Amino acid sequence: MKTIQVNTSHPYKIFIEQGLLEKCGQIVSELMPSGRCAIITDDIVDSLYSTAVTDSLKKAGLTTVKFVFKNGESSKCSENLNNIYTFLAKNHITRSDCLIALGGGVVGDITGFAAATFLRGIKYIQIPTTLLAQIDSSVGGKTAIDLPEGKNLVGAFKQPLAVICDPLTLTTLTPAIASDGMAEAIKYGMIRSRELFDLIASHTTENYIQQAEEIISRCVTIKAEIVCNDEFDTGERMLLNFGHTLAHAVESYYHYETYTHGSAVAIGMYVITKHAAMLGICTDETLSSLSTVIRNYNLPVLADAPMNELIPLCLNDKKRESDYINIIICDKIGSSYISKMPISKFYEFMDIQPTKES
Amino acid sequence: MKTIQVNTSHPYKIFIEQGLLEKCGQIVSELMPSGRCAIITDDIVDSLYSTAVTDSLKKAGLTTVKFVFKNGESSKCSENLNNIYTFLAKNHITRSDCLIALGGGVVGDITGFAAATFLRGIKYIQIPTTLLAQIDSSVGGKTAIDLPEGKNLVGAFKQPLAVICDPLTLTTLTPAIASDGMAEAIKYGMIRSRELFDLIASHTTENYIQQAEEIISRCVTIKAEIVCNDEFDTGERMLLNFGHTLAHAVESYYHYETYTHGSAVAIGMYVITKHAAMLGICTDETLSSLSTVIRNYNLPVLADAPMNELIPLCLNDKKRESDYINIIICDKIGSSYISKMPISKFYEFMDIQPTKES
Repeated sequence: MKTIQVNTSHPYKIFIEQGLLEKCGQIVSELMPSGRCAIITDDIVDSLYSTAVTDSLKKAGLTTVKFVFKNGESSKCSENLNNIYTFLAKNHITRSDCLIALGGGVVGDITGFAAATFLRGIKYIQIPTTLLAQIDSSVGGKTAIDLPEGKNLVGAFKQPLAVICDPLTLTTLTPAIASDGMAEAIKYGMIRSRELFDLIASHTTENYIQQAEEIISRCVTIKAEIVCNDEFDTGERMLLNFGHTLAHAVESYYHYETYTHGSAVAIGMYVITKHAAMLGICTDETLSSLSTVIRNYNLPVLADAPMNELIPLCLNDKKRESDYINIIICDKIGSSYISKMPISKFYEFMDIQPTKES
Repeated sequence: MKTIQVNTSHPYKIFIEQGLLEKCGQIVSELMPSGRCAIITDDIVDSLYSTAVTDSLKKAGLTTVKFVFKNGESSKCSENLNNIYTFLAKNHITRSDCLIALGGGVVGDITGFAAATFLRGIKYIQIPTTLLAQIDSSVGGKTAIDLPEGKNLVGAFKQPLAVICDPLTLTTLTPAIASDGMAEAIKYGMIRSRELFDLIASHTTENYIQQAEEIISRCVTIKAEIVCNDEFDTGERMLLNFGHTLAHAVESYYHYETYTHGSAVAIGMYVITKHAAMLGICTDETLSSLSTVIRNYNLPVLADAPMNELIPLCLNDKKRESDYINIIICDKIGSSYISKMPISKFYEFMDIQPTKES
């Protein structure tokens, strides 16, 4: 079993091993010798993995209750959150108990936010079951729900008690969902590790699973390191935003329908790097390697949306500071930095004319 | 002007002075040299004080937007919270901006929770306008909304940037709302300061206002000290719960309709102290002094509800730990301690037979 330590204000461990789902009770019971577990999951994950998890928890002497909601991003809303609160209140969940987020990013984000706020904070454990959740969203303590006005606009920083990661769950993902997660894996390679990038580049959606344990542990090691240096996202952690400012604009332009998050991130990484290459900030080889690996995983490099309509949407970024925007640039594969640009400079960088509103 | 420092994880100051409302812009602009202020208030407070606050903020060079909701505890709900989120999103409030909670406990609690969660946390300032909010709820960073299943079941710890307290606002309170707040002031005297208790005891609802500045500053000094020692409410901070375990049961029994929070706290303090006196844990003089001051402020000492129906409701307390309950006992005026009792011992203390469900 691979174990990665995350030294945030509340330190915790990430456990990675094939078949770990069926042994999760051991880990949970060591962290929660008494108390009950409230499993929060979606209908798809429920049908695949709830039995294994519940059985393992019971075998370890824990009692469980379970809340299941409809899969998909539309469940990451305040209505579903209220349903979770009601479920917790009716089941008399106390601060001695623990939530278990069993599923992908949506389950992890909303369960984490429920844990951050129910009774002003109770414990929770992440059991991520998608590539995206395993390499990215389950680690680092960012929790959230969406508002009609935008994604992740409401949330909290709340570190889990542990992350339990079983790469075997990746075998049930559709190729599209695997690709969606791989975009974030490519991001980790781009910003911090040529070695990880090459490992990903030497595989495809069809055969990456052989190296899943290695890819996951390398990604979360990078994330853990960055998050520990900047838990509350005011500095270095912005590196994790590589490709994301434009990605959020693409997702928003298409009302979160046409492109998955991963596809939008792939587009964001490519477009920023293309402009960096045009200005000589990075080499053409960086751009072409990135482009190749993105295509290998069946991800797009461009959206149809006109750039002069996308750029103003970038200015809604949560991390925008009044007249500045923080853009992440990779000068070569495995190396990145934060470029704090005045808005006008950002327009120049993207080679378009500012519109009136901006 | 009295200034009290609160040394929590994010330290801040409480400013107390008659007429401070009209000078609040100075304090806010020093803390927030740029950015906008989103004032959140209720309809009653809006009609009384919004103009003074907005004028002062504008005079100090700040820009403002305002959200007004219907007064009353029923507004401390997820629906109103969502309306606040929508207002903030539509007004493009960013992390460089600041919420201003202008009003009583409901306004402070829900605005604080919105500040704790919108964009995963933005700054907020408390301008409390009721006695309860000035001496208690605006200090210490506890924020919350109610669920249909119970009060304050969802919330966060989020310290404000500052608390701006103008005792002149107390002149517009009804006697009932003043009494409601005074119950908490009596609590501070009981748990920590004979001097404060005597100051309160030598006044009534009719004339306490002459000493309001002194009473407020003594109460918040005690609260600041206790909160600094235990920001996240796992130890000493429970002392602030004196009378509250039973109060929550009384409020819940009457569906939050018959008794105000302060009235319920008065009942809770009296009943616990009565049982302590019966067991010789405190003197009869403690009980009679408490009883006198409670009556002086037109607060009740008993509810009609039968004790054997109230006690099981005490077990829903957020701070209950599996088989134990933490009860705060004053052995004399100005002195208190936490008594961690097994549930069975609590029934014995309250001199009733346990029911089956408990």
